[in-house]
Amino acid sequence: MTQPSHKALVPFVSVDNMMRLIHHIGIEPMLRELAGYIEEDFKRWELFDKTPRVASHSDVGVIELMPTSDGEAYGFKYVNGHPKNTREGLQTVTAFGLLADVHTGYPVLLTEMTILTAMRTAAMSALAARYLAPRDARVMAMIGNGAQSEFQCLAFHALCGVETVRLYDTDPAATAKTARNLAKTALSVVPCTSPEEAIEGAQIITTCTADKQYATILTDNMVGSGVHINAIGGDCPGKTELAPAILKRSDIFVEYPEQTRIEGEIQQMPADHPVTELWQVITGQAKGRRDARAITLFDSVGFAIEDFSALRYIRDRIKGTDMFEPLDMLADPDDPRDLFGMVQRAKV
Amino acid sequence: MTQPSHKALVPFVSVDNMMRLIHHIGIEPMLRELAGYIEEDFKRWELFDKTPRVASHSDVGVIELMPTSDGEAYGFKYVNGHPKNTREGLQTVTAFGLLADVHTGYPVLLTEMTILTAMRTAAMSALAARYLAPRDARVMAMIGNGAQSEFQCLAFHALCGVETVRLYDTDPAATAKTARNLAKTALSVVPCTSPEEAIEGAQIITTCTADKQYATILTDNMVGSGVHINAIGGDCPGKTELAPAILKRSDIFVEYPEQTRIEGEIQQMPADHPVTELWQVITGQAKGRRDARAITLFDSVGFAIEDFSALRYIRDRIKGTDMFEPLDMLADPDDPRDLFGMVQRAKV
Repeated sequence: MTQPSHKALVPFVSVDNMMRLIHHIGIEPMLRELAGYIEEDFKRWELFDKTPRVASHSDVGVIELMPTSDGEAYGFKYVNGHPKNTREGLQTVTAFGLLADVHTGYPVLLTEMTILTAMRTAAMSALAARYLAPRDARVMAMIGNGAQSEFQCLAFHALCGVETVRLYDTDPAATAKTARNLAKTALSVVPCTSPEEAIEGAQIITTCTADKQYATILTDNMVGSGVHINAIGGDCPGKTELAPAILKRSDIFVEYPEQTRIEGEIQQMPADHPVTELWQVITGQAKGRRDARAITLFDSVGFAIEDFSALRYIRDRIKGTDMFEPLDMLADPDDPRDLFGMVQRAKV
Repeated sequence: MTQPSHKALVPFVSVDNMMRLIHHIGIEPMLRELAGYIEEDFKRWELFDKTPRVASHSDVGVIELMPTSDGEAYGFKYVNGHPKNTREGLQTVTAFGLLADVHTGYPVLLTEMTILTAMRTAAMSALAARYLAPRDARVMAMIGNGAQSEFQCLAFHALCGVETVRLYDTDPAATAKTARNLAKTALSVVPCTSPEEAIEGAQIITTCTADKQYATILTDNMVGSGVHINAIGGDCPGKTELAPAILKRSDIFVEYPEQTRIEGEIQQMPADHPVTELWQVITGQAKGRRDARAITLFDSVGFAIEDFSALRYIRDRIKGTDMFEPLDMLADPDDPRDLFGMVQRAKV
């Protein structure tokens, strides 16, 4: 066997190593650090290649590649979405990601991204809320208690000082699961039996449900002034969570308007409905919360730059640890023109 | 540590295992089998998603994703192109690929593709020649003796009955390298000191040089009637190998006109210059070689479907072997809604 050179080996973070890394760093510190990397990248938003995602649709789902680059590094995420998978004991969404060096084109990181995406989505939500939610918000309603819910709750605790989460799901078993998972954390957890009960006293409302059709998780009369809505469940054409009347009363903040107008809550609104790009709030070019009475809405669909930030973070964070394996993925002949000779010499 | 389920483990073929697989099967049998898979996919050409490649350009190179799907499987290749890399002891091109199940969105194969791409490119060239070259062709000129050259020569031996290869490169050391590598094969090898000498008596001319600007490896007077030209070096905007006068005299066959008009030799011709799609020749819908005097030209740039065929082939061929490793790449909680619980339980 020929020994591959150093650069031919790509560091790989398995699911097992991702979980080890999370416990090594701690979930809340990691959510804070991830938010820091995302914030950094949103501050240099204009630098990025903003290619739309490349989607391959079938009757039962979609497979997408989400590439982007800051001119130094290049990253992409592979992600599928197959709602019928759960009935077969499989995940609706699985993901992995790759980071490469733009200067050489060599990959420098391959990593699981199912868990990492849950972490970066939660970090993104809480980062947006830090710019948009009322400063004194301590209570959050968490509507939709699926795979993302605990990560959201902990991110709002770690980054925004939320102390109480009020949980609601159409399936009480999901609420019980989330309550059980959060029982040992610093959060006060209040399981609720209706969305109306969940939003009582909440200054932040997070909606994260998996409904496919135009659903109305929040109706207009449920949303009072001064509230921040973090809407992450509406993320593809035909999938929304909020009544249009709420959108009309809200100041709407988005990641990338071109994508959000197709995939987000605002797909229900005219194409010229005013929105503010979050990166401009983060750089100070645009206003976030106008006043204490405004309803702010982060209409989040997930954008490639957030995955890029997460990949950068993992690349930096695994340095000096044993939480990755070197993968012999790149052929590396001594003489670049002699690929055939390398293959021949491997013959035993 | 939580044990990942069967489907969460993605078979990975490393560079080392790809070389083992090649020697296990034999290079020439593998080239023939690969050509068979490509031929099968060209026969069902219309079934495929034909997304253009997604390229990210920088000053020094390009990183591309080439996805496609036949409705059952989905594949993509990551490939970079950095000509300056060789000066730094790195590969100009590295590649890896992934195959996934369209029905579940789960990846089913991750593999190195630097070596595999060399194999599939050679198989593609020889497959095209079987439909286009004179039947009695036994002598091939191989102009450009880089990393691809030995694979080309062996594929034309295995698939087209070529017995003699006449080698030429501007760098005599490259020719010596290719001659040395082919010395132990069944081919007669004739090193030449000029392109004119190399094409003497050759019924097939393969050009595979790495020149970046519009180069003229073959001039008009060098190409006689009845010859088949296999032009694989012109594969990006600004990179061509043939004099336009040759193109005017040739029947031109291409993989995918939309891509070849941008990247191939025919970028030198008007946008409506007539070409024939190779898949139509393979299915019998279009004529290949008209007569013994025609000059046929396969203006090859490499298309995603060829990589897809190669990925399908490797997936089938590693079954029952130990030439892959299971990669713990997909998070797989017992309860799909309980990703957080899975992460928590991994805490030691």
